[in-house]
Amino acid sequence: MTSWIRFRQPQGHIGFGVLDNGNIAEFEGDMFGDATATGKQWQQDDVELLSPCLPTKVVALWNNFHALSQKLGKAAPSHPLFLIKPPMSVIGPGAPIRRPKGYSGKIAYEGELGIVIGKRCTNVSPEEADGYIFGYTCINDVTAVDLLNEDPNFAQWCRSKGFDTFSCIGPVIKTQFDWRNANVVTRLDDVERQNYPISDMIFTPAEQVSMISHDMTLMPGDVIACGTSIGVGSIKDGSTVVVSIDGIGALPNQLAAARQLETAA
Amino acid sequence: MTSWIRFRQPQGHIGFGVLDNGNIAEFEGDMFGDATATGKQWQQDDVELLSPCLPTKVVALWNNFHALSQKLGKAAPSHPLFLIKPPMSVIGPGAPIRRPKGYSGKIAYEGELGIVIGKRCTNVSPEEADGYIFGYTCINDVTAVDLLNEDPNFAQWCRSKGFDTFSCIGPVIKTQFDWRNANVVTRLDDVERQNYPISDMIFTPAEQVSMISHDMTLMPGDVIACGTSIGVGSIKDGSTVVVSIDGIGALPNQLAAARQLETAA
Repeated sequence: MTSWIRFRQPQGHIGFGVLDNGNIAEFEGDMFGDATATGKQWQQDDVELLSPCLPTKVVALWNNFHALSQKLGKAAPSHPLFLIKPPMSVIGPGAPIRRPKGYSGKIAYEGELGIVIGKRCTNVSPEEADGYIFGYTCINDVTAVDLLNEDPNFAQWCRSKGFDTFSCIGPVIKTQFDWRNANVVTRLDDVERQNYPISDMIFTPAEQVSMISHDMTLMPGDVIACGTSIGVGSIKDGSTVVVSIDGIGALPNQLAAARQLETAA
Repeated sequence: MTSWIRFRQPQGHIGFGVLDNGNIAEFEGDMFGDATATGKQWQQDDVELLSPCLPTKVVALWNNFHALSQKLGKAAPSHPLFLIKPPMSVIGPGAPIRRPKGYSGKIAYEGELGIVIGKRCTNVSPEEADGYIFGYTCINDVTAVDLLNEDPNFAQWCRSKGFDTFSCIGPVIKTQFDWRNANVVTRLDDVERQNYPISDMIFTPAEQVSMISHDMTLMPGDVIACGTSIGVGSIKDGSTVVVSIDGIGALPNQLAAARQLETAA
């Protein structure tokens, strides 16, 4: 059980390493390949945690939990149903979610388990798939809800979920994580809004990696957002969402208030 | 009017440069920034042309031509309707389209104009947008048609169009190209199947770049596939599709026959 992170220290240096009890041991090389300890140590409090990986794509599942599937009255799918979120949508723990310019509608959180791919894979079997999983992380899969069905002929999944800052990932990638005994818990301004067992999944992580690897080559650092369950809701400007999974950690992200956005611009 | 290409020479060296009358002047640096001529020359016949850019994402439009919109009986959209195709879906001219493993259904071609982004852009106006367009290319936006509506609750755009080899791009990126007076012509085994004026577009390239840059940051080398018009059809195994646009060039790609796939595997 190792917790891999990426970080930026105050002088701007970006690195990666292993987080243990507030101490960071820096590594160099390839997180997913030959990573070697540099001997340098950092304190977590002295650095900014970044998204723990830089995916070439985020594959985000819809309708992958029995409880939500039943609540929506939708049949369980026979293959993972997904959309693709672009690399620029990714942010790390603590980074602000930004409201799209010109969009005043509803913005929703979705707390999810994330699978991080460790090795390039194409057409792998479910039995082989675990060997291609580097570890697991927390995801807040953010949606500009009012855009999804704006056009009657085309559900705009990629648009409504693909905005910059709409894929919150972190705080760490946990290796050898036992998802079968964990819950995803989502808090909105400290009030619990989601708390569901990951074991209620329709497609397990190994099934997802196998089936999606038949749809496209998955690359090291790519992320599969496993889909959410009941309790999805909207975020007011200035509110903070924390997605946490016991054994991985807590992923806090605030929807920037309008005033903060003006200052940042 | 410059034709930028990427190529691989027989010893495996991958480079980029300017194609002029069968001669390639190699450049180094950044195609979209400080590119300088190396002085090296190659003959087009001696090298393999690759996809002329390596997008971080392909943004592929649906319902962007009046003629097809009217044929389908769908209203023109108020904002570009798009899905995202992953980087691994991209191939260059002459590379084989590969049938997905385990999929025996219909595979369709769509001949399209492609916009190649030259500078990182977010929230640009239509008036500014042309300054962010590096040039134009030809696209064959390939689809595993039978998967699109396999699930009654979720149109699988990203899955059916996101397979490896399903975004054919090339042969060149043409700068200062006047799309207003050009047609997209698609030939299937030398029979013309599409021939439509690009001027029939619902959203012009500048409008697309502006509106999509409000949805996500576009990066140098990213490609917008402008959508297709009437004449879409299916490709038999072993058949070759050539998408050509006068002033850009011709993009040939064969759907590999089963026997070829076995040999390659």
